[in-house]
Amino acid sequence: MKRNPHFACVSERYLFQEVLKRKEAFLKEHPHAKIISLSIGDTTEPLSKTIVEGLIESAHSLGKVESYLGYGPEKGQEALRKKIADALYQNKVSSDDIFISDGAKCDIGRLQILFGSDCTIGLQDPAYPAYLDTAVLFRGPKIHLLPCEPKNNFFFNIEEMKKVDAVFICSPNNPTGAILSKKQLEQAVAFAKKHGKIIVFDAAYASYVQGDHLRSIYEIEGAEDVAIEIGSFSKMAGFSGVRLGWTVIPSSLKFADGHPVKADWSRLITTFFNGASVLSQKAALSALSHEGLKEIATQVSFYLENASLLRNAFINLNFETYGGEHSPYLWVRIPGKTSWQAFQELLDKSHIITTPGVGFGPQGEGFLRISSFGRRSHIEEAIERLHKFS
Amino acid sequence: MKRNPHFACVSERYLFQEVLKRKEAFLKEHPHAKIISLSIGDTTEPLSKTIVEGLIESAHSLGKVESYLGYGPEKGQEALRKKIADALYQNKVSSDDIFISDGAKCDIGRLQILFGSDCTIGLQDPAYPAYLDTAVLFRGPKIHLLPCEPKNNFFFNIEEMKKVDAVFICSPNNPTGAILSKKQLEQAVAFAKKHGKIIVFDAAYASYVQGDHLRSIYEIEGAEDVAIEIGSFSKMAGFSGVRLGWTVIPSSLKFADGHPVKADWSRLITTFFNGASVLSQKAALSALSHEGLKEIATQVSFYLENASLLRNAFINLNFETYGGEHSPYLWVRIPGKTSWQAFQELLDKSHIITTPGVGFGPQGEGFLRISSFGRRSHIEEAIERLHKFS
Repeated sequence: MKRNPHFACVSERYLFQEVLKRKEAFLKEHPHAKIISLSIGDTTEPLSKTIVEGLIESAHSLGKVESYLGYGPEKGQEALRKKIADALYQNKVSSDDIFISDGAKCDIGRLQILFGSDCTIGLQDPAYPAYLDTAVLFRGPKIHLLPCEPKNNFFFNIEEMKKVDAVFICSPNNPTGAILSKKQLEQAVAFAKKHGKIIVFDAAYASYVQGDHLRSIYEIEGAEDVAIEIGSFSKMAGFSGVRLGWTVIPSSLKFADGHPVKADWSRLITTFFNGASVLSQKAALSALSHEGLKEIATQVSFYLENASLLRNAFINLNFETYGGEHSPYLWVRIPGKTSWQAFQELLDKSHIITTPGVGFGPQGEGFLRISSFGRRSHIEEAIERLHKFS
Repeated sequence: MKRNPHFACVSERYLFQEVLKRKEAFLKEHPHAKIISLSIGDTTEPLSKTIVEGLIESAHSLGKVESYLGYGPEKGQEALRKKIADALYQNKVSSDDIFISDGAKCDIGRLQILFGSDCTIGLQDPAYPAYLDTAVLFRGPKIHLLPCEPKNNFFFNIEEMKKVDAVFICSPNNPTGAILSKKQLEQAVAFAKKHGKIIVFDAAYASYVQGDHLRSIYEIEGAEDVAIEIGSFSKMAGFSGVRLGWTVIPSSLKFADGHPVKADWSRLITTFFNGASVLSQKAALSALSHEGLKEIATQVSFYLENASLLRNAFINLNFETYGGEHSPYLWVRIPGKTSWQAFQELLDKSHIITTPGVGFGPQGEGFLRISSFGRRSHIEEAIERLHKFS
C-alpha cells in the first residue's frame, strides 16, 4: 500500500512533540537540571472538590445495575448540553445545537472531515498548530495563511477571507494571547455572511476573558448564520486529562446549497465518534454546578495571576510583550534571535522550556509563547531565572 | 461554502440512529409497549467492583496536587500499554506498538485519514457499518465489497483482495458472529504479504472467543508485517460508556516506499487526538488486574449464556441461525422477508427491536442481527415473545 502523500507535507513531529524531544535531549546532557516548563499549556491545579465528588458519584452509579450507563447519545447527554447552554451561553444558544466532544483538538480534526477535501482553509498566522496540521494531513496544503501582526492588533485583513471557504479564528488567541474586539468580529461575521464563508470560532480560552470583552461569537448579531464555535473544559476546569469539549453548530448555518451544516455534523459524529466518556460528562456537569462554577473561576483567576506575574517580569526586562491579560499565554519578542535560538538559549541558561513562536506559523518567528500554567512557586522561580537570560 | 459531496453518498442516518428513529415512531403509536432491545450491542451489566474502585481512586488522585494529571501521552499511559501487552498479548506484541484510543469506532475513522484519499478499501459484506460509512464520508465511494456468505463460512474469496489496498476483517464477526479459522487468516496474511496489502483486523470481540480459536491476528506468523489490530474494552469490560480501546501498529509494518506505518500513525494521533481520558485509562488498568480479569471474564460468560439461550430459541423455532458461540451476536435468516420487513414485524408483534441485516451490507438482506446484551430477565422474556413472531 502506498503512503498517504499528505503526511510528507507536515513537519516530522507535532510542535509539542518536538519541544519534548529537545527537552529530553537537554536532560540527557544535564540529568540534574531542574527544568521549569512554560511550554505546553497544561493545567497543574488539581480538580476541584465538587468535580471530584461528581466523579466518585459517577463511579458508584456505573457500578450499579439500575444506574449503569453504556452508549449514550453521540452528541452528549441532554442534561449536560442544557447546562452548557444555560451556564455558558445564557440560553442564547440552543442545547440542541451543542455537541459534546472529547476535546476541542479532536473536533478541530473532525471539522476537516466535515468540510471535505475540495475546500480551502484560512488560518491566522500565527495559530494553534492543530488547525494547520489537521488541515494538511486531511487534504494536503490547501491552506491560506492570514498574517496577524502586532501592528494590526493580531487580526488579519478581512478582504483576505475572499480566498478561503472557511476560516479558523481563535480569541482569546493561542498563541498570542490577543483578544479580538467586538468590532473586528462584527466585520468578520458581516464578510462571511456576504460572501458565504464559514467561521470556526475557537473559544477554548473564553473563561479567561475579563470585563465585558466578547466571550462567544454568538454575541455578534447574525453569527448563528455563519459561525461554528468550539469550547473546551480543559483550561476552564483542569480537564486536559479528563477530556471534554463541545462544538456549537447552529441550526441556521447552511451550506451554499441550503443543506444544514448541523445535519452533516450529526452524521459525522454518529459515525466517527461514539460520545465522550460518561465520567467526563458527569465531571463537566459538576463543574457547571453552582459550587463548581465558583471553584473553577478561582482556578482561572489563579492562572491569570501567574500570567500577570510573568507579564510584569518580561515587561520589566524590556521585552516586547503581548497577551496575558485575557489569556494564560504571553507572546514575547526576543530581539535578534530566531524562535528556536531563543528557545534553546532560555533552556541552556535558565532551564526553562517555552514554545518557539515560529512553530505557530511564519509570523511567529522571533517570538516565544509563554504559558502561565504552573504551580506558583515554579512561576516565581522561573521569573528569578529569567534574569540570567535577559 | 459548498457542501462536502461525500455526505450525499451515505444513508441519511447511521444504522443505529435509523433503528432508534423507528423505535421512537413505534413508541409514539404504542406508548405503553414494553420494548426489549436486541438491537445495538450495548452492555447492560454494571462495571465490576475492581473497576469502580479504580475509578474512585483515580478521582481522588486527580483532586490532589501531587497526583493530578493533565495531558498524558497521546498514545496512552505506558503502564496501561504494558498491561495490555502482557495480559492480552502475552507480550507477543510490544507495548510501544500499542496506541490507546477512546474506542475502536474512533480509531476506525482515524485509520481512514491514515490511509488517505487515493486508496481503495475492501470490506466484508456484511460488515460493521462504521467501516463503510467512515470510508465513504472520508473519500467517497472508493469501496470494494467482499461478499461473505454462509456457504463460505462467511469469508471472502482471497483473490478479491487484489482489487483493494487495505481490507477490514472482523473476527469474531460483527454482525454474523462467525469466527475465522487460523487457516483462513493464514491465507489472508500470505496474500497481503505477497501483494503489499494492509489488513485491519478488528478484534473488538476477542474476549468472546472460546477454546483455542484465534484471538489476535498476531498469532499468525508474519502478520506483524501486514496487519493492524483494533481492540476494545467496550464489550470486554462494559466500557461502552466509559470509552476505551486500542490499536496495534507493529514497527515492522511498512508502506510500499518503506516508510513505517507506525510513524505516520504517531503523527496522526498526536495531531487529531489528545489521548483517552485518564479516568478511562485507570479503569482499564483495573480491569486488567488479577481480580479485574476474573470479574470481566464472568461478565463475558454471562453474555455468552444469553447468546446460547437465544441461539437455542431461534434454532428450536427452525430459523437458520449463525453465531452466538464465540460472539454476542446471532445472525438469523428470516425467510420470505426483507430485513426491514422482518424488523418491523418483530417490533409490531413481539415488541422486540433487532438490527436489520441489510444495514450491514447487501449480503445481509433477509437476515436480522440479534444482540445478546441484556439483563437475563429481558432475554428470557424476549425468547417467550419470539413465539408470537414465528
